Amino acid sequence: MRVLVLGLGRMGSAIASLLASVGHEVRGYDPSPEARARASAAGVSTVGSPDPAGYGAVVAAVPLWLSAEVARELCPRIPGMYVDVSTLKVEVNAELRRCGGPLRVSVHPLFGRGAGGLAGWPIALTPIEDAERELRAASELFRGAELIVMDESTHDEAVAYSVALPHVLGYLFRAVSRDRPSIPTVSRRLQELAAAVEAEDPELTSHLISRSPQARRALEELRSALSEILSAPDPLAALSSMRGDWRERGALYEAAYRALGCSAPGP
Amino acid sequence: MRVLVLGLGRMGSAIASLLASVGHEVRGYDPSPEARARASAAGVSTVGSPDPAGYGAVVAAVPLWLSAEVARELCPRIPGMYVDVSTLKVEVNAELRRCGGPLRVSVHPLFGRGAGGLAGWPIALTPIEDAERELRAASELFRGAELIVMDESTHDEAVAYSVALPHVLGYLFRAVSRDRPSIPTVSRRLQELAAAVEAEDPELTSHLISRSPQARRALEELRSALSEILSAPDPLAALSSMRGDWRERGALYEAAYRALGCSAPGP
Repeated sequence: MRVLVLGLGRMGSAIASLLASVGHEVRGYDPSPEARARASAAGVSTVGSPDPAGYGAVVAAVPLWLSAEVARELCPRIPGMYVDVSTLKVEVNAELRRCGGPLRVSVHPLFGRGAGGLAGWPIALTPIEDAERELRAASELFRGAELIVMDESTHDEAVAYSVALPHVLGYLFRAVSRDRPSIPTVSRRLQELAAAVEAEDPELTSHLISRSPQARRALEELRSALSEILSAPDPLAALSSMRGDWRERGALYEAAYRALGCSAPGP
Repeated sequence: MRVLVLGLGRMGSAIASLLASVGHEVRGYDPSPEARARASAAGVSTVGSPDPAGYGAVVAAVPLWLSAEVARELCPRIPGMYVDVSTLKVEVNAELRRCGGPLRVSVHPLFGRGAGGLAGWPIALTPIEDAERELRAASELFRGAELIVMDESTHDEAVAYSVALPHVLGYLFRAVSRDRPSIPTVSRRLQELAAAVEAEDPELTSHLISRSPQARRALEELRSALSEILSAPDPLAALSSMRGDWRERGALYEAAYRALGCSAPGP
Protein backbone atom coordinates (compact mmCIF):
# COMPACT_ATOMS: atom_id res chain seq x y z
CA MET A 1 0.00 0.00 0.00
CA ARG A 2 1.19 3.57 -0.63
CA VAL A 3 1.32 5.32 2.74
CA LEU A 4 1.91 8.95 3.63
CA VAL A 5 3.10 9.62 7.18
CA LEU A 6 2.38 13.16 8.33
CA GLY A 7 4.70 14.30 11.08
CA LEU A 8 8.26 13.04 11.33
CA GLY A 9 8.95 13.38 15.01
CA ARG A 10 10.08 10.34 16.97
CA MET A 11 6.74 8.56 16.59
CA GLY A 12 6.26 9.46 12.91
CA SER A 13 9.77 8.38 11.90
CA ALA A 14 9.44 5.10 13.80
CA ILE A 15 6.05 4.37 12.23
CA ALA A 16 7.35 5.22 8.74
CA SER A 17 10.29 2.81 9.13
CA LEU A 18 8.11 0.05 10.57
CA LEU A 19 5.54 0.37 7.78
CA ALA A 20 8.31 0.26 5.16
CA SER A 21 9.74 -2.83 6.88
CA VAL A 22 6.52 -4.76 6.25
CA GLY A 23 6.46 -3.92 2.54
CA HIS A 24 4.51 -0.68 2.21
CA GLU A 25 5.65 2.10 -0.05
CA VAL A 26 6.05 4.84 2.53
CA ARG A 27 6.61 8.58 2.19
CA GLY A 28 6.99 10.99 5.05
CA TYR A 29 6.19 14.68 5.34
CA ASP A 30 6.87 17.24 8.04
CA PRO A 31 6.50 21.03 7.76
CA SER A 32 9.95 21.38 9.32
CA PRO A 33 12.82 20.92 6.81
CA GLU A 34 15.05 19.89 9.75
CA ALA A 35 12.63 17.11 10.74
CA ARG A 36 12.50 15.96 7.12
CA ALA A 37 16.29 15.92 6.91
CA ARG A 38 16.60 13.95 10.18
CA ALA A 39 14.02 11.39 9.02
CA SER A 40 15.68 11.17 5.63
CA ALA A 41 19.03 10.48 7.27
CA ALA A 42 17.28 7.73 9.27
CA GLY A 43 16.20 6.08 6.01
CA VAL A 44 12.70 7.48 5.55
CA SER A 45 11.74 8.60 2.01
CA THR A 46 10.40 12.11 2.40
CA VAL A 47 8.24 14.35 0.23
CA GLY A 48 7.96 18.12 0.16
CA SER A 49 4.16 18.33 0.32
CA PRO A 50 1.39 16.83 2.46
CA ASP A 51 -0.83 16.30 -0.60
CA PRO A 52 -2.73 13.05 0.13
CA ALA A 53 -3.60 12.30 -3.54
CA GLY A 54 -2.53 8.82 -4.60
CA TYR A 55 -2.02 7.35 -1.12
CA GLY A 56 -4.06 4.42 0.17
CA ALA A 57 -3.47 5.52 3.74
CA VAL A 58 -2.50 8.74 5.49
CA VAL A 59 -1.05 8.32 8.97
CA ALA A 60 -1.27 11.39 11.21
CA ALA A 61 1.64 11.26 13.65
CA VAL A 62 1.28 14.79 14.96
CA PRO A 63 1.80 16.14 18.47
CA LEU A 64 -0.90 15.08 20.94
CA TRP A 65 -2.41 18.52 21.31
CA LEU A 66 -2.81 18.86 17.54
CA SER A 67 -4.40 15.50 16.71
CA ALA A 68 -8.06 16.59 16.92
CA GLU A 69 -7.41 19.77 14.96
CA VAL A 70 -5.46 17.93 12.24
CA ALA A 71 -8.21 15.29 12.01
CA ARG A 72 -10.83 18.01 11.57
CA GLU A 73 -8.81 19.68 8.81
CA LEU A 74 -7.55 16.64 6.97
CA CYS A 75 -9.78 13.64 7.23
CA PRO A 76 -12.59 14.92 4.98
CA ARG A 77 -9.96 15.43 2.24
CA ILE A 78 -8.33 11.99 2.48
CA PRO A 79 -9.38 9.70 -0.39
CA GLY A 80 -8.46 6.46 1.40
CA MET A 81 -7.79 5.53 5.00
CA TYR A 82 -7.04 8.17 7.65
CA VAL A 83 -5.04 6.78 10.57
CA ASP A 84 -4.51 8.60 13.86
CA VAL A 85 -1.71 7.21 16.06
CA SER A 86 -1.85 9.60 19.02
CA THR A 87 -1.57 8.63 22.68
CA LEU A 88 -5.03 9.81 23.83
CA LYS A 89 -8.16 8.76 21.97
CA VAL A 90 -11.35 10.20 23.50
CA GLU A 91 -11.03 13.69 22.04
CA VAL A 92 -9.65 12.74 18.63
CA ASN A 93 -12.16 9.91 18.15
CA ALA A 94 -15.07 12.31 18.69
CA GLU A 95 -13.57 14.43 15.93
CA LEU A 96 -13.00 11.41 13.68
CA ARG A 97 -16.71 10.49 13.98
CA ARG A 98 -17.72 14.00 12.98
CA CYS A 99 -15.26 14.62 10.16
CA GLY A 100 -16.43 12.09 7.57
CA GLY A 101 -14.18 10.51 4.96
CA PRO A 102 -14.29 6.93 3.69
CA LEU A 103 -12.39 5.13 6.47
CA ARG A 104 -10.96 6.38 9.74
CA VAL A 105 -8.77 4.22 11.96
CA SER A 106 -7.65 5.23 15.45
CA VAL A 107 -4.75 3.30 16.93
CA HIS A 108 -2.03 3.71 19.56
CA PRO A 109 1.18 1.73 19.08
CA LEU A 110 2.14 0.40 22.51
CA PHE A 111 5.84 0.20 21.81
CA GLY A 112 8.64 2.49 20.88
CA ARG A 113 12.14 2.84 19.59
CA GLY A 114 13.08 -0.63 20.74
CA ALA A 115 10.81 -2.30 18.20
CA GLY A 116 12.88 -3.61 15.31
CA GLY A 117 9.77 -4.70 13.40
CA LEU A 118 6.03 -4.95 13.78
CA ALA A 119 5.81 -8.71 14.37
CA GLY A 120 4.07 -9.41 17.63
CA TRP A 121 4.11 -5.83 18.91
CA PRO A 122 0.88 -4.62 20.50
CA ILE A 123 -1.19 -1.83 18.99
CA ALA A 124 -4.41 -0.62 20.61
CA LEU A 125 -7.30 -0.09 18.19
CA THR A 126 -10.17 2.08 19.35
CA PRO A 127 -13.14 1.68 16.98
CA ILE A 128 -14.72 4.71 15.30
CA GLU A 129 -17.73 3.29 13.42
CA ASP A 130 -17.23 -0.28 12.24
CA ALA A 131 -14.83 -2.19 14.46
CA GLU A 132 -14.58 -5.21 12.13
CA ARG A 133 -13.74 -3.16 9.07
CA GLU A 134 -11.28 -0.93 10.93
CA LEU A 135 -9.58 -3.97 12.44
CA ARG A 136 -9.16 -5.51 8.98
CA ALA A 137 -7.75 -2.28 7.59
CA ALA A 138 -5.37 -1.83 10.53
CA SER A 139 -4.22 -5.46 10.27
CA GLU A 140 -3.41 -4.93 6.62
CA LEU A 141 -1.49 -1.74 7.36
CA PHE A 142 0.35 -2.84 10.52
CA ARG A 143 1.16 -6.33 9.23
CA GLY A 144 2.12 -8.81 11.92
CA ALA A 145 1.33 -6.54 14.86
CA GLU A 146 -0.97 -7.74 17.63
CA LEU A 147 -4.04 -5.50 17.49
CA ILE A 148 -5.90 -5.07 20.77
CA VAL A 149 -9.42 -3.69 20.40
CA MET A 150 -10.64 -1.51 23.26
CA ASP A 151 -13.03 1.39 23.55
CA GLU A 152 -11.48 4.84 23.75
CA SER A 153 -12.44 5.51 27.38
CA THR A 154 -10.83 2.27 28.53
CA HIS A 155 -7.79 3.13 26.43
CA ASP A 156 -7.35 6.61 27.87
CA GLU A 157 -7.85 5.25 31.38
CA ALA A 158 -5.20 2.60 30.70
CA VAL A 159 -2.85 5.32 29.45
CA ALA A 160 -3.48 7.28 32.66
CA TYR A 161 -2.56 4.34 34.89
CA SER A 162 0.06 2.64 32.69
CA VAL A 163 1.82 5.65 31.18
CA ALA A 164 1.10 8.90 33.02
CA LEU A 165 1.16 7.45 36.54
CA PRO A 166 4.45 5.50 36.20
CA HIS A 167 6.09 8.44 34.48
CA VAL A 168 5.04 10.80 37.26
CA LEU A 169 6.17 8.28 39.89
CA GLY A 170 9.54 8.20 38.15
CA TYR A 171 9.79 11.99 38.25
CA LEU A 172 8.70 12.10 41.88
CA PHE A 173 11.17 9.45 42.94
CA ARG A 174 13.99 11.28 41.22
CA ALA A 175 12.92 14.67 42.56
CA VAL A 176 12.77 13.42 46.13
CA SER A 177 15.76 11.07 46.21
CA ARG A 178 18.36 12.91 44.19
CA ASP A 179 21.28 14.33 46.18
CA ARG A 180 20.31 11.96 49.02
CA PRO A 181 22.51 9.13 50.26
CA SER A 182 21.47 5.76 48.93
CA ILE A 183 22.23 2.12 49.56
CA PRO A 184 22.03 -0.73 47.06
CA THR A 185 18.58 -2.20 47.61
CA VAL A 186 15.33 -2.72 45.75
CA SER A 187 15.48 0.98 44.84
CA ARG A 188 18.16 0.33 42.24
CA ARG A 189 15.44 -0.82 39.82
CA LEU A 190 13.35 2.23 40.59
CA GLN A 191 16.42 4.40 39.97
CA GLU A 192 16.80 2.80 36.55
CA LEU A 193 13.12 3.24 35.80
CA ALA A 194 13.29 6.89 36.85
CA ALA A 195 16.37 7.40 34.70
CA ALA A 196 14.56 5.89 31.70
CA VAL A 197 11.49 8.04 32.29
CA GLU A 198 13.40 11.25 32.70
CA ALA A 199 15.63 10.54 29.73
CA GLU A 200 12.49 10.90 27.63
CA ASP A 201 11.01 14.22 26.68
CA PRO A 202 8.82 15.45 29.57
CA GLU A 203 6.38 16.97 27.05
CA LEU A 204 4.27 13.85 26.64
CA THR A 205 3.86 13.40 30.40
CA SER A 206 3.08 17.08 30.77
CA HIS A 207 0.42 16.94 28.06
CA LEU A 208 -1.11 13.82 29.56
CA ILE A 209 -1.43 15.65 32.89
CA SER A 210 -2.91 18.73 31.20
CA ARG A 211 -5.23 17.02 28.74
CA SER A 212 -6.29 13.69 30.23
CA PRO A 213 -8.93 13.88 32.96
CA GLN A 214 -8.14 10.22 33.72
CA ALA A 215 -4.47 11.03 34.28
CA ARG A 216 -5.38 13.85 36.67
CA ARG A 217 -7.72 11.52 38.51
CA ALA A 218 -4.95 8.91 38.82
CA LEU A 219 -2.65 11.54 40.32
CA GLU A 220 -5.32 12.81 42.70
CA GLU A 221 -5.84 9.22 43.84
CA LEU A 222 -2.11 8.94 44.33
CA ARG A 223 -2.13 12.04 46.54
CA SER A 224 -5.08 10.70 48.57
CA ALA A 225 -3.41 7.33 49.12
CA LEU A 226 -0.20 9.05 50.23
CA SER A 227 -2.08 11.32 52.61
CA GLU A 228 -3.82 8.26 54.01
CA ILE A 229 -0.47 6.63 54.78
CA LEU A 230 0.93 9.82 56.29
CA SER A 231 -2.06 10.56 58.51
CA ALA A 232 -2.81 6.99 59.59
CA PRO A 233 -2.32 6.36 63.32
CA ASP A 234 -1.18 2.89 62.24
CA PRO A 235 0.47 2.92 58.78
CA LEU A 236 0.36 -0.87 58.79
CA ALA A 237 -3.40 -0.89 58.37
CA ALA A 238 -3.19 1.61 55.52
CA LEU A 239 -0.43 -0.33 53.76
CA SER A 240 -2.20 -3.64 54.27
CA SER A 241 -5.36 -2.29 52.67
CA MET A 242 -3.32 -1.33 49.61
CA ARG A 243 -2.00 -4.82 49.00
CA GLY A 244 -3.56 -7.22 46.57
CA ASP A 245 -4.80 -10.63 47.52
CA TRP A 246 -1.51 -12.46 47.31
CA ARG A 247 -2.34 -16.01 48.26
CA GLU A 248 0.96 -17.25 46.88
CA ARG A 249 3.28 -14.67 48.24
CA GLY A 250 6.40 -16.78 48.13
CA ALA A 251 5.99 -17.78 44.51
CA LEU A 252 5.06 -14.24 43.49
CA TYR A 253 8.02 -12.84 45.34
CA GLU A 254 10.46 -15.15 43.60
CA ALA A 255 8.84 -14.62 40.20
CA ALA A 256 8.90 -10.86 40.58
CA TYR A 257 12.54 -10.84 41.53
CA ARG A 258 13.48 -13.24 38.78
CA ALA A 259 11.68 -10.92 36.37
CA LEU A 260 13.67 -8.01 37.75
CA GLY A 261 16.85 -10.00 37.32
CA CYS A 262 17.92 -9.32 40.88
CA SER A 263 17.96 -11.10 44.19
CA ALA A 264 15.28 -10.62 46.81
CA PRO A 265 15.75 -7.65 49.14
CA GLY A 266 16.56 -7.94 52.83
CA PRO A 267 13.96 -8.24 55.54
CA MET B 1 34.03 -18.18 66.19
CA ARG B 2 31.10 -19.39 68.31
CA VAL B 3 28.14 -17.19 67.45
CA LEU B 4 24.70 -16.96 69.05
CA VAL B 5 21.96 -15.45 66.87
CA LEU B 6 19.07 -14.05 68.91
CA GLY B 7 15.84 -13.92 66.95
CA LEU B 8 15.06 -16.46 64.23
CA GLY B 9 12.73 -14.48 62.01
CA ARG B 10 13.58 -14.10 58.33
CA MET B 11 16.62 -11.91 59.01
CA GLY B 12 17.90 -13.99 61.95
CA SER B 13 17.61 -17.30 60.11
CA ALA B 14 19.31 -15.88 57.02
CA ILE B 15 22.16 -14.41 59.09
CA ALA B 16 22.60 -17.68 61.00
CA SER B 17 22.88 -19.67 57.76
CA LEU B 18 25.27 -17.16 56.18
CA LEU B 19 27.52 -17.09 59.24
CA ALA B 20 27.60 -20.90 59.33
CA SER B 21 28.45 -20.90 55.60
CA VAL B 22 31.68 -18.98 56.26
CA GLY B 23 32.83 -21.39 58.98
CA HIS B 24 31.43 -20.06 62.25
CA GLU B 25 29.91 -22.37 64.82
CA VAL B 26 26.44 -20.86 64.95
CA ARG B 27 23.54 -21.44 67.32
CA GLY B 28 20.17 -19.72 67.07
CA TYR B 29 17.64 -18.86 69.74
CA ASP B 30 14.10 -17.51 69.57
CA PRO B 31 11.56 -17.32 72.40
CA SER B 32 8.98 -18.84 70.04
CA PRO B 33 9.21 -22.66 69.76
CA GLU B 34 7.57 -22.38 66.31
CA ALA B 35 10.29 -19.98 65.09
CA ARG B 36 12.96 -22.32 66.48
CA ALA B 37 11.36 -25.29 64.72
CA ARG B 38 11.15 -23.40 61.40
CA ALA B 39 14.79 -22.31 61.64
CA SER B 40 15.82 -25.81 62.61
CA ALA B 41 14.02 -27.21 59.58
CA ALA B 42 15.94 -24.66 57.48
CA GLY B 43 19.22 -26.06 58.78
CA VAL B 44 19.99 -23.72 61.69
CA SER B 45 21.26 -25.35 64.92
CA THR B 46 19.05 -24.00 67.66
CA VAL B 47 19.40 -23.80 71.44
CA GLY B 48 16.68 -23.55 74.09
CA SER B 49 18.18 -20.63 76.00
CA PRO B 50 19.54 -17.17 75.17
CA ASP B 51 22.42 -17.57 77.67
CA PRO B 52 25.38 -15.75 76.04
CA ALA B 53 28.08 -17.55 78.04
CA GLY B 54 30.72 -19.15 75.86
CA TYR B 55 29.94 -17.23 72.63
CA GLY B 56 32.46 -14.94 70.97
CA ALA B 57 29.64 -12.95 69.36
CA VAL B 58 25.95 -12.44 70.01
CA VAL B 59 23.95 -11.19 67.02
CA ALA B 60 20.67 -9.46 67.88
CA ALA B 61 18.27 -10.00 64.95
CA VAL B 62 15.16 -8.77 66.71
CA PRO B 63 12.23 -6.77 65.35
CA LEU B 64 13.08 -3.15 64.57
CA TRP B 65 10.99 -1.70 67.37
CA LEU B 66 12.74 -3.91 69.95
CA SER B 67 16.36 -3.37 68.97
CA ALA B 68 17.12 -0.47 71.37
CA GLU B 69 15.37 -2.18 74.27
CA VAL B 70 17.16 -5.49 73.65
CA ALA B 71 20.50 -3.68 73.39
CA ARG B 72 19.86 -1.94 76.74
CA GLU B 73 19.00 -5.25 78.40
CA LEU B 74 21.59 -7.49 76.85
CA CYS B 75 24.73 -5.74 75.79
CA PRO B 76 26.10 -5.11 79.33
CA ARG B 77 25.85 -8.86 79.93
CA ILE B 78 27.57 -10.02 76.74
CA PRO B 79 31.14 -11.20 77.39
CA GLY B 80 32.32 -10.80 73.78
CA MET B 81 30.99 -8.91 70.79
CA TYR B 82 27.40 -7.63 70.63
CA VAL B 83 26.16 -7.19 67.06
CA ASP B 84 22.98 -5.35 66.12
CA VAL B 85 21.70 -5.99 62.57
CA SER B 86 18.55 -3.85 62.54
CA THR B 87 17.41 -1.64 59.66
CA LEU B 88 17.54 1.73 61.49
CA LYS B 89 20.64 2.79 63.39
CA VAL B 90 20.26 6.22 65.03
CA GLU B 91 18.19 5.10 68.00
CA VAL B 92 19.91 1.77 68.66
CA ASN B 93 23.40 3.24 68.28
CA ALA B 94 22.66 5.83 70.98
CA GLU B 95 21.69 2.92 73.22
CA LEU B 96 24.78 0.92 72.24
CA ARG B 97 26.99 3.85 73.27
CA ARG B 98 25.30 4.02 76.67
CA CYS B 99 25.08 0.34 77.47
CA GLY B 100 28.74 -0.58 77.84
CA GLY B 101 30.16 -4.05 77.20
CA PRO B 102 33.52 -4.90 75.64
CA LEU B 103 32.68 -4.51 71.93
CA ARG B 104 29.52 -3.35 70.17
CA VAL B 105 29.10 -3.55 66.41
CA SER B 106 26.16 -2.02 64.54
CA VAL B 107 25.59 -3.25 61.01
CA HIS B 108 22.80 -3.49 58.43
CA PRO B 109 23.05 -6.26 55.82
CA LEU B 110 22.00 -4.71 52.51
CA PHE B 111 20.79 -7.93 50.96
CA GLY B 112 18.25 -10.60 51.62
CA ARG B 113 17.04 -14.05 50.89
CA GLY B 114 18.66 -14.06 47.49
CA ALA B 115 22.17 -14.11 48.94
CA GLY B 116 23.59 -17.62 48.74
CA GLY B 117 26.73 -16.61 50.62
CA LEU B 118 28.42 -13.57 52.07
CA ALA B 119 31.08 -13.08 49.38
CA GLY B 120 30.82 -9.62 47.91
CA TRP B 121 27.49 -8.73 49.52
CA PRO B 122 27.30 -5.23 50.98
CA ILE B 123 26.86 -4.65 54.71
CA ALA B 124 26.62 -1.13 56.15
CA LEU B 125 28.70 -0.60 59.29
CA THR B 126 27.81 2.40 61.46
CA PRO B 127 30.58 3.01 64.01
CA ILE B 128 29.83 3.13 67.73
CA GLU B 129 33.14 4.08 69.36
CA ASP B 130 36.17 2.83 67.45
CA ALA B 131 35.45 2.48 63.73
CA GLU B 132 38.74 0.65 62.97
CA ARG B 133 38.27 -1.94 65.66
CA GLU B 134 34.59 -2.49 64.84
CA LEU B 135 35.40 -2.83 61.15
CA ARG B 136 38.03 -5.47 61.91
CA ALA B 137 35.60 -7.37 64.14
CA ALA B 138 32.77 -7.18 61.57
CA SER B 139 35.13 -8.30 58.79
CA GLU B 140 36.11 -11.32 60.82
CA LEU B 141 32.47 -12.18 61.55
CA PHE B 142 30.98 -11.47 58.10
CA ARG B 143 33.86 -13.02 56.14
CA GLY B 144 33.98 -11.99 52.52
CA ALA B 145 31.21 -9.38 52.74
CA GLU B 146 31.84 -5.85 51.50
CA LEU B 147 31.62 -3.60 54.55
CA ILE B 148 30.58 -0.02 53.86
CA VAL B 149 31.32 2.39 56.71
CA MET B 150 28.84 5.26 57.12
CA ASP B 151 27.60 7.31 60.02
CA GLU B 152 24.22 6.36 61.42
CA SER B 153 22.41 9.52 60.26
CA THR B 154 23.56 9.01 56.68
CA HIS B 155 22.55 5.37 56.95
CA ASP B 156 19.04 6.07 58.20
CA GLU B 157 18.60 8.77 55.56
CA ALA B 158 19.71 6.28 52.89
CA VAL B 159 17.20 3.75 54.24
CA ALA B 160 14.47 6.41 54.03
CA TYR B 161 15.19 7.15 50.37
CA SER B 162 16.33 3.70 49.21
CA VAL B 163 13.99 1.44 51.20
CA ALA B 164 11.00 3.27 52.67
CA LEU B 165 10.37 5.55 49.68
CA PRO B 166 10.48 2.83 46.97
CA HIS B 167 8.36 0.53 49.09
CA VAL B 168 5.74 3.21 49.63
CA LEU B 169 5.83 4.08 45.91
CA GLY B 170 5.18 0.40 45.19
CA TYR B 171 2.20 0.36 47.54
CA LEU B 172 0.86 3.59 46.10
CA PHE B 173 1.18 2.42 42.53
CA ARG B 174 -0.61 -0.80 43.33
CA ALA B 175 -3.31 0.94 45.37
CA VAL B 176 -4.07 3.41 42.61
CA SER B 177 -3.71 1.20 39.55
CA ARG B 178 -5.28 -2.07 40.65
CA ASP B 179 -8.64 -2.86 39.07
CA ARG B 180 -7.81 -0.30 36.37
CA PRO B 181 -7.30 -1.18 32.72
CA SER B 182 -3.68 -1.36 31.73
CA ILE B 183 -1.61 -1.57 28.58
CA PRO B 184 1.81 -3.13 28.20
CA THR B 185 4.20 -0.21 28.57
CA VAL B 186 7.00 0.96 30.80
CA SER B 187 4.65 0.32 33.73
CA ARG B 188 5.19 -3.43 33.45
CA ARG B 189 8.45 -3.01 35.37
CA LEU B 190 6.73 -0.89 38.00
CA GLN B 191 4.04 -3.56 38.30
CA GLU B 192 6.72 -6.14 38.97
CA LEU B 193 8.42 -3.89 41.49
CA ALA B 194 5.11 -3.26 43.24
CA ALA B 195 4.38 -6.99 43.27
CA ALA B 196 7.77 -7.67 44.83
CA VAL B 197 7.27 -4.96 47.45
CA GLU B 198 3.81 -6.06 48.39
CA ALA B 199 4.80 -9.73 48.49
CA GLU B 200 6.93 -8.75 51.47
CA ASP B 201 5.59 -8.23 54.94
CA PRO B 202 4.27 -4.65 55.21
CA GLU B 203 5.45 -4.49 58.82
CA LEU B 204 8.94 -3.25 58.01
CA THR B 205 7.65 -0.45 55.78
CA SER B 206 5.08 0.45 58.40
CA HIS B 207 7.69 0.63 61.14
CA LEU B 208 10.00 2.70 58.97
CA ILE B 209 7.17 5.19 58.46
CA SER B 210 6.36 5.24 62.17
CA ARG B 211 9.89 5.29 63.58
CA SER B 212 12.12 7.01 61.05
CA PRO B 213 11.86 10.81 60.91
CA GLN B 214 13.87 10.65 57.68
CA ALA B 215 11.32 8.32 56.09
CA ARG B 216 8.47 10.64 57.05
CA ARG B 217 10.39 13.56 55.61
CA ALA B 218 10.92 11.67 52.36
CA LEU B 219 7.19 11.00 52.13
CA GLU B 220 6.30 14.60 52.95
CA GLU B 221 8.66 15.66 50.16
CA LEU B 222 6.91 13.22 47.88
CA ARG B 223 3.55 14.76 48.70
CA SER B 224 4.90 18.29 48.11
CA ALA B 225 6.37 17.35 44.73
CA LEU B 226 3.10 15.72 43.69
CA SER B 227 1.10 18.76 44.78
CA GLU B 228 3.49 20.93 42.80
CA ILE B 229 2.80 18.92 39.65
CA LEU B 230 -0.95 18.95 40.25
CA SER B 231 -1.23 22.67 40.95
CA ALA B 232 1.26 23.88 38.32
CA PRO B 233 -0.34 25.99 35.56
CA ASP B 234 2.25 24.33 33.29
CA PRO B 235 3.16 20.81 34.45
CA LEU B 236 6.04 20.83 31.97
CA ALA B 237 7.95 23.36 34.04
CA ALA B 238 7.40 21.35 37.22
CA LEU B 239 8.45 18.08 35.56
CA SER B 240 11.46 19.68 33.93
CA SER B 241 12.68 21.00 37.27
CA MET B 242 12.55 17.47 38.63
CA ARG B 243 14.84 16.02 36.02
CA GLY B 244 18.53 15.56 36.53
CA ASP B 245 21.18 17.04 34.33
CA TRP B 246 21.14 14.44 31.58
CA ARG B 247 23.74 15.59 29.10
CA GLU B 248 23.79 12.19 27.45
CA ARG B 249 20.12 11.42 27.27
CA GLY B 250 20.34 8.98 24.41
CA ALA B 251 23.07 6.88 25.99
CA LEU B 252 21.35 6.96 29.37
CA TYR B 253 18.06 5.98 27.82
CA GLU B 254 19.55 2.98 26.10
CA ALA B 255 21.55 1.96 29.16
CA ALA B 256 18.55 2.21 31.43
CA TYR B 257 16.43 0.12 29.14
CA ARG B 258 19.17 -2.43 28.66
CA ALA B 259 19.42 -2.63 32.45
CA LEU B 260 15.69 -3.17 32.63
CA GLY B 261 15.97 -5.89 30.02
CA CYS B 262 13.19 -4.35 27.95
CA SER B 263 12.85 -2.21 24.87
CA ALA B 264 12.40 1.53 24.99
CA PRO B 265 8.83 2.79 25.49
CA GLY B 266 6.84 4.58 22.82
CA PRO B 267 6.93 8.31 22.26
